[in-house]
Amino acid sequence: MRALRLVVQYDGTDYAGFQTQPDRPTIQGTLEQVAGEILGHPVRLTAAGRTDAGVHALGQVITLQTDTPLPLAKVPEVFNNRLPADITVAAAEQVDESFHPRFDARRKRYSYRILNRDIASPFICRYAWHVREPLDGEAMAAAAEHLLGEHDFATFCAGGSEVTSTVRTLYSLDVARERDILEIWGEANGFLYQMMRIIVGTLVDVGAGRLCAEEVVQILERGDRRYAGPTAPPHGLCLARVIY
Amino acid sequence: MRALRLVVQYDGTDYAGFQTQPDRPTIQGTLEQVAGEILGHPVRLTAAGRTDAGVHALGQVITLQTDTPLPLAKVPEVFNNRLPADITVAAAEQVDESFHPRFDARRKRYSYRILNRDIASPFICRYAWHVREPLDGEAMAAAAEHLLGEHDFATFCAGGSEVTSTVRTLYSLDVARERDILEIWGEANGFLYQMMRIIVGTLVDVGAGRLCAEEVVQILERGDRRYAGPTAPPHGLCLARVIY
Repeated sequence: MRALRLVVQYDGTDYAGFQTQPDRPTIQGTLEQVAGEILGHPVRLTAAGRTDAGVHALGQVITLQTDTPLPLAKVPEVFNNRLPADITVAAAEQVDESFHPRFDARRKRYSYRILNRDIASPFICRYAWHVREPLDGEAMAAAAEHLLGEHDFATFCAGGSEVTSTVRTLYSLDVARERDILEIWGEANGFLYQMMRIIVGTLVDVGAGRLCAEEVVQILERGDRRYAGPTAPPHGLCLARVIY
Repeated sequence: MRALRLVVQYDGTDYAGFQTQPDRPTIQGTLEQVAGEILGHPVRLTAAGRTDAGVHALGQVITLQTDTPLPLAKVPEVFNNRLPADITVAAAEQVDESFHPRFDARRKRYSYRILNRDIASPFICRYAWHVREPLDGEAMAAAAEHLLGEHDFATFCAGGSEVTSTVRTLYSLDVARERDILEIWGEANGFLYQMMRIIVGTLVDVGAGRLCAEEVVQILERGDRRYAGPTAPPHGLCLARVIY
């Protein structure tokens, strides 16, 4: 047996999230089925992170065990010939069997895209949250700075997760505007359940003037989800990269 | 009655083309239904061009007649609140009733996008033709120059159209590469049926080395569809702008 590590990209729009669910299309279910057909044996894969329904990925990392003689260089092509167009294997390499895509990840990087103008766009509606009210990107960037570093991010964690600690280190949280598009990039040693989306929802409250940048410090310190802003919708979010 | 001119954008992926068809989703059918609900009377719209199934638009122009008291400035918002996310009204203005979006168009501008690399992308697969073989963009640009000006473009016209003349003037045909993306922009006083897609298919034959740039002159002069390259698939094509 050898362990393969694949970098996977997907448009999550038409899937009920990464993790396998009975009777619903999922990224994991689709990948495992196609991998099973190609490799000729049942495949159980492990992923760096279980993205929610509607969330996209440019750099999801999965591993699977196989004894296929298929040359490594052929793996992306063979997978992509069978996968639907909204899931792509971008790279494949062999790794040590002890490698674990989630436990060995040192950092993850997410992007969140907002279309900030009056009129929507049919071409980016799948990949961006459409916010009509004008957002002050500089105020959002100032608020974002207050969240950098190691903190208890319990305020920015949705219920239903089972983590033992809500302390995480946020290495960067950048807000950049290019014309009508606001992009928010976050990099951390780990993200709590819906953490990035709650951070984005809170920053949008700042950008719209409903919160001031300094209030974000108090919100963080309260450790209570109810004080943060709304959870931004999933379709603006993309798991950009997993760093090992 | 007053005549409204709307600029419409759409992702054509999930539609059987612009023109109304029984029992199939079309851009025209969707717009006419939503317009009828909003305006309170049956609506028959006229468009600058009937894009094929899968073709997109950033600047389709339509007109409709109405006696609605709805203020012009509210029209895009009211339409967009009811339209599906893949169709957007970008602008609305009142025009003279004699205005005709097709007959009065002086020029049309189309873009065609090609993803030119080995691995596909789930994020642009709806909007770009994935061509794996390396394409020589400079050779394609050189071939494109041979098509500029007024010519009989019968070679680049698919069967089934009912035009009286196949003479058109191509004002520009630019080929630009940015990393893995090749974009081809064409502007003409009119396009024959599938003309832009047959031009693109022929330029791709040049880019792949199956044709040389000079042969495009002979192909044009033959006036016979069989000598041109394949018809590029619809999903790379976008009606970018109609110029009056």
